[in-house]
Amino acid sequence: MSQLITDMAILAGEVPLEEVQDQLLSFYQKVRGETEGLAASLSAEDMQLQSMPDASPTKWHLAHTSWFFETFVLASRLPGYQVFNPHFNHLFNSYYNSLGTPFSRSERGLISRPDLGQIYEYRKAVDVGMQTLLSDYPVSPNLASLIQLGLNHEQQHQELILTDIKHALSVNPMALAYSDALPEDEGYPLEPLRWLKIPRGFYGIGSDGNSFCFDNERPEHQQFVDEFRIASRLITNGEYLEFIQDGGYEKHRLWLSDGWSLIQQNQYKSPCYWRRNESGWQQYSLHGSVTLNRSEPVYHLSFYEADAFATWAGKRLPTEFEWEAAACHLRRPDQMAIANFLEKRHFKPLQAQRGHTQFLGDLWEWTSSAYLPYRRFRTRADAVGEYNGKFMCNQKVLRGGSFATPADHIRISYRNFFYPHQSWQFTGIRLAGD
Amino acid sequence: MSQLITDMAILAGEVPLEEVQDQLLSFYQKVRGETEGLAASLSAEDMQLQSMPDASPTKWHLAHTSWFFETFVLASRLPGYQVFNPHFNHLFNSYYNSLGTPFSRSERGLISRPDLGQIYEYRKAVDVGMQTLLSDYPVSPNLASLIQLGLNHEQQHQELILTDIKHALSVNPMALAYSDALPEDEGYPLEPLRWLKIPRGFYGIGSDGNSFCFDNERPEHQQFVDEFRIASRLITNGEYLEFIQDGGYEKHRLWLSDGWSLIQQNQYKSPCYWRRNESGWQQYSLHGSVTLNRSEPVYHLSFYEADAFATWAGKRLPTEFEWEAAACHLRRPDQMAIANFLEKRHFKPLQAQRGHTQFLGDLWEWTSSAYLPYRRFRTRADAVGEYNGKFMCNQKVLRGGSFATPADHIRISYRNFFYPHQSWQFTGIRLAGD
Amino acid sequence: MSQLITDMAILAGEVPLEEVQDQLLSFYQKVRGETEGLAASLSAEDMQLQSMPDASPTKWHLAHTSWFFETFVLASRLPGYQVFNPHFNHLFNSYYNSLGTPFSRSERGLISRPDLGQIYEYRKAVDVGMQTLLSDYPVSPNLASLIQLGLNHEQQHQELILTDIKHALSVNPMALAYSDALPEDEGYPLEPLRWLKIPRGFYGIGSDGNSFCFDNERPEHQQFVDEFRIASRLITNGEYLEFIQDGGYEKHRLWLSDGWSLIQQNQYKSPCYWRRNESGWQQYSLHGSVTLNRSEPVYHLSFYEADAFATWAGKRLPTEFEWEAAACHLRRPDQMAIANFLEKRHFKPLQAQRGHTQFLGDLWEWTSSAYLPYRRFRTRADAVGEYNGKFMCNQKVLRGGSFATPADHIRISYRNFFYPHQSWQFTGIRLAGD
Amino acid sequence: MSQLITDMAILAGEVPLEEVQDQLLSFYQKVRGETEGLAASLSAEDMQLQSMPDASPTKWHLAHTSWFFETFVLASRLPGYQVFNPHFNHLFNSYYNSLGTPFSRSERGLISRPDLGQIYEYRKAVDVGMQTLLSDYPVSPNLASLIQLGLNHEQQHQELILTDIKHALSVNPMALAYSDALPEDEGYPLEPLRWLKIPRGFYGIGSDGNSFCFDNERPEHQQFVDEFRIASRLITNGEYLEFIQDGGYEKHRLWLSDGWSLIQQNQYKSPCYWRRNESGWQQYSLHGSVTLNRSEPVYHLSFYEADAFATWAGKRLPTEFEWEAAACHLRRPDQMAIANFLEKRHFKPLQAQRGHTQFLGDLWEWTSSAYLPYRRFRTRADAVGEYNGKFMCNQKVLRGGSFATPADHIRISYRNFFYPHQSWQFTGIRLAGD
Repeated sequence: MSQLITDMAILAGEVPLEEVQDQLLSFYQKVRGETEGLAASLSAEDMQLQSMPDASPTKWHLAHTSWFFETFVLASRLPGYQVFNPHFNHLFNSYYNSLGTPFSRSERGLISRPDLGQIYEYRKAVDVGMQTLLSDYPVSPNLASLIQLGLNHEQQHQELILTDIKHALSVNPMALAYSDALPEDEGYPLEPLRWLKIPRGFYGIGSDGNSFCFDNERPEHQQFVDEFRIASRLITNGEYLEFIQDGGYEKHRLWLSDGWSLIQQNQYKSPCYWRRNESGWQQYSLHGSVTLNRSEPVYHLSFYEADAFATWAGKRLPTEFEWEAAACHLRRPDQMAIANFLEKRHFKPLQAQRGHTQFLGDLWEWTSSAYLPYRRFRTRADAVGEYNGKFMCNQKVLRGGSFATPADHIRISYRNFFYPHQSWQFTGIRLAGD
Repeated sequence: MSQLITDMAILAGEVPLEEVQDQLLSFYQKVRGETEGLAASLSAEDMQLQSMPDASPTKWHLAHTSWFFETFVLASRLPGYQVFNPHFNHLFNSYYNSLGTPFSRSERGLISRPDLGQIYEYRKAVDVGMQTLLSDYPVSPNLASLIQLGLNHEQQHQELILTDIKHALSVNPMALAYSDALPEDEGYPLEPLRWLKIPRGFYGIGSDGNSFCFDNERPEHQQFVDEFRIASRLITNGEYLEFIQDGGYEKHRLWLSDGWSLIQQNQYKSPCYWRRNESGWQQYSLHGSVTLNRSEPVYHLSFYEADAFATWAGKRLPTEFEWEAAACHLRRPDQMAIANFLEKRHFKPLQAQRGHTQFLGDLWEWTSSAYLPYRRFRTRADAVGEYNGKFMCNQKVLRGGSFATPADHIRISYRNFFYPHQSWQFTGIRLAGD
Repeated sequence: MSQLITDMAILAGEVPLEEVQDQLLSFYQKVRGETEGLAASLSAEDMQLQSMPDASPTKWHLAHTSWFFETFVLASRLPGYQVFNPHFNHLFNSYYNSLGTPFSRSERGLISRPDLGQIYEYRKAVDVGMQTLLSDYPVSPNLASLIQLGLNHEQQHQELILTDIKHALSVNPMALAYSDALPEDEGYPLEPLRWLKIPRGFYGIGSDGNSFCFDNERPEHQQFVDEFRIASRLITNGEYLEFIQDGGYEKHRLWLSDGWSLIQQNQYKSPCYWRRNESGWQQYSLHGSVTLNRSEPVYHLSFYEADAFATWAGKRLPTEFEWEAAACHLRRPDQMAIANFLEKRHFKPLQAQRGHTQFLGDLWEWTSSAYLPYRRFRTRADAVGEYNGKFMCNQKVLRGGSFATPADHIRISYRNFFYPHQSWQFTGIRLAGD
Repeated sequence: MSQLITDMAILAGEVPLEEVQDQLLSFYQKVRGETEGLAASLSAEDMQLQSMPDASPTKWHLAHTSWFFETFVLASRLPGYQVFNPHFNHLFNSYYNSLGTPFSRSERGLISRPDLGQIYEYRKAVDVGMQTLLSDYPVSPNLASLIQLGLNHEQQHQELILTDIKHALSVNPMALAYSDALPEDEGYPLEPLRWLKIPRGFYGIGSDGNSFCFDNERPEHQQFVDEFRIASRLITNGEYLEFIQDGGYEKHRLWLSDGWSLIQQNQYKSPCYWRRNESGWQQYSLHGSVTLNRSEPVYHLSFYEADAFATWAGKRLPTEFEWEAAACHLRRPDQMAIANFLEKRHFKPLQAQRGHTQFLGDLWEWTSSAYLPYRRFRTRADAVGEYNGKFMCNQKVLRGGSFATPADHIRISYRNFFYPHQSWQFTGIRLAGD
């Protein structure tokens, strides 16, 4: 478990190296297995699909995550390791300019060869290398930390495998399902939305380094937050439908200027994946086309939609600091167990259960904060330094993870980020107010 | 063989119906088998690729050609035939608006399902249906004629399978080969280019209806052609290289205005698929990357390139009427046997052999003629009427077939057509002069 | 008058040089004055407008036509002539790559300086130079011919001044009029459309050189034309309205494939400049917005619209050879006097009068012919050789001139050409049939 | 002077209404006169130019600022006022959707009519109305406040007149000058760049309402700022040249990812308006093309360029709070007198004089802050509420005003904002460090 061994502990030498390596090896095997499990229901042809430049083929995700270990770990650290195929450094590099020009992002769907079989051989070869490294060689704290990064990186791609294949399959007019196991609707009544008061004060923001975190969660610092109120659950399809029915997509006053341009140009009238037919609103989902359930959280919203909804509701989105303060303040001992994470295999957000605030799991929650470095943030000087810092412009912070996020990947200080127009991710709305 | 039974004979009832049906059935089996043979060396992933809107996935070609028979023949003519899958009419309709809105052309590469296995089952179901129809039912002359059209249509897609997969595989940086059987270069000297004089006079243009033809080859008519000279073979890579080395791509005076804009905007400096490395010019081919052979015909030229070369050479391209007149005038008894057609499985144009004029096979030859209807041309009133007529604008006529054309598909009166900027087809140059 | 002195006569020395020069000088003064007359009702601000890359500002037309004389004539032929401003060669070169890179076509509207006053000084300086040359120096036949070309070139730009300013003013929501003198509608009944039979035979096509012509009208040659019928007048707004009301813009079967794509993408439902309001169809014209007159010729059609209308009507467009044959065959002694040319200052096409076939004047008539060189056409080797030849691809031939064409500029052999999608020109429909 | 009467004072009724109205009238006359003064050296043709959608014609600025007074003030508040021309509400509305669909922003350069004379009549009519209103009628505090907004709005457009005409004239290859009065270079040595320490603490951010401010400067609040250092002057051309010469535009590690994409796609190698010729670097300026002066502040940088330079220098850009804290902390009594504002008519940034920190005037300074609402910010419910709030996404805050900003328009709390890719504004760099 990534939570068990911390970078700080590793780097401080507090844990015996063998124990660190054992735990890393076990984490490695779990993560790698999960990735392949997500692809198991897909054919080689499905895994080839790229339906837009932002979304990558499953096959590419399978290869890229392996390339990460090969390039940053095995190539220089495992004695005798032979690069699997010299073309792969070009093909499966995502955006690390330090390592050469990456293959064109929008053409990833055109890589029929290596075929899927070869990709699995590649994964296997990397797995053998990593297992050898972690079993037979002493691993420095720095290297252990890098391997942890690689595993968390692969977990990020697990979620992307789902968001991207959903988009790709949605293009097919046959309403394909990624998963046939649609969770049953239990039919209990919708929890009313309550407003939870969070007191003013200084709150610790960011990771304290006692567990793994990405560089963008550092440095930890104190942030003053004024009193505010935050919603007790996510906004539902039913609530969003009221916004639509009240002319939400026609009232310019509710929208940010760039958002208004976007919906005008594209004639957007409802969220991505909603379709209306004679029997009412349908929603394309990982379980195929389903009737819209008014009690479930609304998802696949752009930031602009989330913001316009909040304005319409007379509320606002929380800042990322408010979100983090509230999530800490309202933390419950059982929340990780309750939360709707990837391991539950629901493949969709669930209706809020009594007492569950949904801060973690279900859906990534748009905040009003621009994605910017924390004060005194520094990028690393090596190639891995391209990881997060260079994206700190034009994007918005999202918090909390989704039903597609592994439980051991998320934490309250986690900062995700997307462009405000993007809606193919599993994104939802939590309101705040003063 | 399509040449054996003619529409005219069928329609006139000159041939006993059983004989017609027997021959059609045998032609059907041959063509369908050839199509699948061309796909045999490709994986399901390869067959999924669509590298540009103009080019379609192999899988789509396999399905579309079957859709043609299902839609135009089986659905209405075979008693009890069940449509294989109602979605296929949308997915595999190319451009027949009469039959509903076709699935977006540029998204054909996003159809992972039906998967390849289902496509082969579809082909099988259509084959069974067609065989039943041709074996067990009397087929009217009109229907026989429609089946012949379907088979010639499928032969057209055989060539497209090759042009399109070549383009798709070329995007992959690993220089993939479609075929490993690169024909040996026999090393004989290049035939000098001679100028053959064709006398002035009226020439019969178009098909006389004594063998199968497309609607655009009709009506047959007489065309006056002045005396001219025509080259005894295709232009070679070596000759085209002289044009490049003489600054052909930098001299605006050689180019049509639209062509000059095209090469300026795209920074074209050589034909599509040519790459220069330290050891000289390489050419991406169906056999992977090969060293440019100066004696072989130059191919993958746009009309603009062909025209600019002709201007540079002080010559011109022939009109389609000149081409047809010359091809008739110079016809030799053995030309079909010599010609480099698909059946030879060379998958490339060959150096001209002594005495072979290359009018048929090797490469489609750009003419200077705009693709326009022959006088009194009429489109058919039914859906098949969309076949050729609606494309008679903005395109140029090409003649003669290529190494990817089946021998029993081509004829002297055959009119192919592409937009002047297109170069992913197997296109070459034959010069003419006054 | 350009018709009075012919190139042939000039070049053959049949006319005394002084007489040639006198006539040229008088023609020069007339043409130059007419150009300025067309601009007289426009402000400097109007003349600055460029509403799309295809259309140029009036100011630019005023300058470019002067640049033609300065560059091709005065700079090298008038002793002591000083170039007016060295920047102008860059700014006012249209497309002559031989003379340097022209200023970006789509940015012509951004040339505020030289201001209009300076452009008129430029015109004046060129006029002084040209008058000096023609009065004080002996002019060689070749130079005389070049000056004639320059004057015909300027006449072409007179028509473009009108087409381009109409487009530019149309963007303004205030329905501006170029001219206030709207011709009165005389209210006589519409001439019925009759079908005139043209006998089969060889017809002389192109200019015989006995009057000025552009290079694309040469060489003159004989063309065999089969018997056909041609409409006795242009198609009217009322007739085109029937096509619209019959769903012409919704029936794909009527359209060429490229045309169908164009109208689908742009949601075209009626001709350019037609607008429907509560009181019916309005038409934006050089006289501002007017109620559609059903008896007047329909104009501003793309080739695709003209072709679809013809298909709907069960007819076709004539070839350019048929058009020329018919125009010759039906020629009447008084046609030049009757015809609606620029000199009449109607600034719109007129309802056909009894017995007037409208072959010349009123509207340019789309033919079905691609714009291609006549056999043995050769471009000139000098910069003027860029005049017509390099455009002989992707365009369609139009014949007959319009209400914006000067009477002494047009002739039966005249070949105009535009892309099939273009509709900002004064284009109309004449039908043909077999 | 806008500073003299405050909203608060007005609204509180502390100042006698007549005095308020007198001061407003005098401010009105000054601002309106200044706007026309800036246009005085331009021709009607110059004022028509629109060289890109972001930049508007001078003529449009002249009209739009008048439309603001007519629409928000005169139409409803001045008894008997007649709207000047009903079309103007459509033509000269910038982005107030509440008032109808604005005329297409990218087509503002196509409004030749109303011509410039009519625009000046429009200004005159509005001036007469406003003077009547302010002289003859009692004006409510709310209305007085709205008039102040209108005047500050017009001052914003004064700066835009200069940025936009500079861009428009730069397209002209003749290197046109807006102003001929190039300030003399006094040749004194460059002030060394010093690092000024600003102590940690809470700083008041935003306007206290004791002078006019825009809504985005409110509410005033306390912000904790850690200790930091800030540069004593702007970065110079010479310093930026070192960055270029060190390969700054080729090193991806220095750039934000979106910035790197931008400069790669556009092949940017130096700031906008820099040109290199045989005698070295030239800069296009409001005085035409001038030799680059290494001691003057570098300007016309995008945020990406500013950020990459800071990274290269081992520093960073300040946050907007740091900037405001530093500007307050380092405030000097004479700074308004020293500063290079519009009234000085230098039309360019000046070399830093001894002891002048350049916080105000010279150039707008990019901060690292995203343009977001201050806590508890609320937009107004009326049409004026569209003023600032709807732009609070995707933009970056700039501070301090430029040489084109009127002195009585700027203040330390002033928040300007542009997209990170924009560089046609007068933008520069001030560095910060920890």
